Amino acid sequence: MYQVQLSACTSIRPSVMLKPRMVQQSREVVQKEQRRVDHRTRVPRNENLEKLRNGYLFPEIAMREAEHLQKYPNFKLINLGIGDTTEPIPDIITSSMVEQAQALSTLEGYRGYGPEHGNKALRKAIADVVYKGLKVKDTEVFVSDGAQCDISRLQLLLGSNVTIAVQDPSFPAYIYSGVIIGQAGEFQEETGKYWNIEYMKCGPQNNLFPNLLTTSRTDVIFFCSPNNPTGHAASRNQLEQLVEFARKNGSIIIYDSAYAAYISDDNSPRSIFEIPGAREVAIEVSSFSKFAGFTGVRLGWTVVPEELLFANGFPVIKDFNRIVYTCFNGASSIAQAGGLACLSPEGLMAIRQVIDYYKENAKILIDTFELLGLKAYGGKNAPYIWVHFPGSRSWDVFDEILEKTHVVTVPGRGFGPGGEEYVRVSAFGHREIILEASKRLKNLYR
Amino acid sequence: MYQVQLSACTSIRPSVMLKPRMVQQSREVVQKEQRRVDHRTRVPRNENLEKLRNGYLFPEIAMREAEHLQKYPNFKLINLGIGDTTEPIPDIITSSMVEQAQALSTLEGYRGYGPEHGNKALRKAIADVVYKGLKVKDTEVFVSDGAQCDISRLQLLLGSNVTIAVQDPSFPAYIYSGVIIGQAGEFQEETGKYWNIEYMKCGPQNNLFPNLLTTSRTDVIFFCSPNNPTGHAASRNQLEQLVEFARKNGSIIIYDSAYAAYISDDNSPRSIFEIPGAREVAIEVSSFSKFAGFTGVRLGWTVVPEELLFANGFPVIKDFNRIVYTCFNGASSIAQAGGLACLSPEGLMAIRQVIDYYKENAKILIDTFELLGLKAYGGKNAPYIWVHFPGSRSWDVFDEILEKTHVVTVPGRGFGPGGEEYVRVSAFGHREIILEASKRLKNLYR
Repeated sequence: MYQVQLSACTSIRPSVMLKPRMVQQSREVVQKEQRRVDHRTRVPRNENLEKLRNGYLFPEIAMREAEHLQKYPNFKLINLGIGDTTEPIPDIITSSMVEQAQALSTLEGYRGYGPEHGNKALRKAIADVVYKGLKVKDTEVFVSDGAQCDISRLQLLLGSNVTIAVQDPSFPAYIYSGVIIGQAGEFQEETGKYWNIEYMKCGPQNNLFPNLLTTSRTDVIFFCSPNNPTGHAASRNQLEQLVEFARKNGSIIIYDSAYAAYISDDNSPRSIFEIPGAREVAIEVSSFSKFAGFTGVRLGWTVVPEELLFANGFPVIKDFNRIVYTCFNGASSIAQAGGLACLSPEGLMAIRQVIDYYKENAKILIDTFELLGLKAYGGKNAPYIWVHFPGSRSWDVFDEILEKTHVVTVPGRGFGPGGEEYVRVSAFGHREIILEASKRLKNLYR
Repeated sequence: MYQVQLSACTSIRPSVMLKPRMVQQSREVVQKEQRRVDHRTRVPRNENLEKLRNGYLFPEIAMREAEHLQKYPNFKLINLGIGDTTEPIPDIITSSMVEQAQALSTLEGYRGYGPEHGNKALRKAIADVVYKGLKVKDTEVFVSDGAQCDISRLQLLLGSNVTIAVQDPSFPAYIYSGVIIGQAGEFQEETGKYWNIEYMKCGPQNNLFPNLLTTSRTDVIFFCSPNNPTGHAASRNQLEQLVEFARKNGSIIIYDSAYAAYISDDNSPRSIFEIPGAREVAIEVSSFSKFAGFTGVRLGWTVVPEELLFANGFPVIKDFNRIVYTCFNGASSIAQAGGLACLSPEGLMAIRQVIDYYKENAKILIDTFELLGLKAYGGKNAPYIWVHFPGSRSWDVFDEILEKTHVVTVPGRGFGPGGEEYVRVSAFGHREIILEASKRLKNLYR
């Protein structure tokens, strides 16, 4: 296996670091260099990393994108692939970051390390504003540099001796981080799944929600709502079922609510903690990335309720605290100042406008696909549209759309076998770009 | 063991989340609540975390500090404990961060996700400026949110099936992250060491460098120079021995150079890559924290040379790249703008002044301890002074200094059994505070 990958890096050449200063030394030095070039450590490669079969989804897309650009240098590529925010961050938020950065150059304003788990004011604002009325304490909020990073820290918390379940399709980081920490068996080419991971199919047959009657018990259930990639925001009833299922099985739900701000539907909770009984079974991971355009600023958080206990009665929050102290050192103080501004009444109002803008984009794209006679899910409570191409392979659809319209999407297969026949289309983008994409896509089948 | 810890969190009480609306429902609801309160998941606690015996060093110090403040509310405490920078960041650097933050509110300047491994310009500046003449390529530089975070990501890279060695004393994160990932056996109370970790004693008997003749072979050697806590910058000759030792044993050195900017001694390399042959055996982790006062801004980097290979010939850089893609999402774009400014000629000049200021502090403290007849190591190539109190227990010395002078230090024992009889004193601080600390310390034995 690794030989295939090695062949891709033939450009790696050890450089010669020593230059012989005297002629009589040169042969000896050359021999020494030869030994050096040949040197391998005796350190075994991490077998968990050896299990990772596929390239990470987004780099793979970037590669195909680059090839396409080479083939069509004069066409303007439109990227509706990676879910990256495009609209400026409202002034009121960047002003706070500017102020914080400036303060760092003053004797009075300079601050070094902050608390590893985040500034008190921000923890409190998250507890009070995001979880208003839900009895989340500021001490249960751990500020981070983003949800993806926190997922890995949660995997460090859980370790290799737990079993996990994921939605199928789902954001690949849950599975990949699980493989890296050692929770998975070998990858099965025929099924496209890793051994020992429970894939909970979330197809339209079951309203994009898992069929819990046929889902095996696992220690941990990764659950994202609104789901990336399907854009489906689970209903209250669905989440009640999920919490009940976790309680019955003694499982921990790791609930990813990174897109919660996009939910308009009253019947879809924005937090798992809206569901009675969730505090004893759930951790919630979230982020300012898609909420406030902080994808590059890097800020997120995780809530671990005090009531959540391991089988031996030990509080999960205490171990997570230890992980955060040891493996992290706090989010940037400048980003945290921005996060605090996001949660002010004015910040929230300004953010709402940006979110509405992206949701209007989503509407345009949904209409486009429906005009083509395709079934498009999501987009109403999420910035993603999940388009069904019955009977087609998703990488083929990806390639066809790219070839014919110069629009980059994400092949559903990249999110698991349950994503086959679908592509994910992102609604992030300037309006004129979305309109241009819509125009091109309408001609897809002409 | 965990019961002791549990007793410390008796304040944790599940909150009642449901209110019975009708009388006939109330008994049923109360019973349901009771079940909820009693709910434990069936998820096993991570046995690696169970192995972690001691509280993390700095929270433990913070606790004693808080107790002291309660006892002496009117005394001004001086903190020479945690190695946290105190002087403002030069304007030229924060200006870049301000500019970047402002740009995020403009259509032209807004950027979302950057590359996970850092912006090209910053990677290139690190390669060209920090590693000038050492043939480090920009593609070998991975920009991060700090060295402590990268150490954990390196542990994810290495996994549980490797053996590690650490300097004794050393910064605790190497051992703790090793325990968390599963590289260590049980903690041995009698020795103060974890099974399966090689503690390389770095005492004055051997010039604060390990005796490699008596050091067992391990897969990985964590090595920090200038070392935290001893402040010792390894000499060129010592590092040549270390590289030769690693080459002979097929080991990987993880070289932490977070304090390299403090080195004045020409005979002490600032990078492991100054040593011929290091590229095949070493990874270097470093940081802007102590270099530019970025402890709260969060920025660091790791260099993984292309020539570094696992036993099976697979390039380590490829696996680390995967870890960074999966478990990280890039350092804050604002922090990266600051980092780039640090490495401009003007930035470097401004930073040099701040470093010299801290080193003058160090000189004052060294003189103070020598006046007391104590042997003080470090301080010349590092912001830490390592003071020897022969025959004393370091926590006792810590307590005595705190009680008599209201100065917080760090007990050497917190850095491993080899730190017994020592305390670490940080030279970070405003000059007037350092002078006041010096005055108080001079009276320690009166």
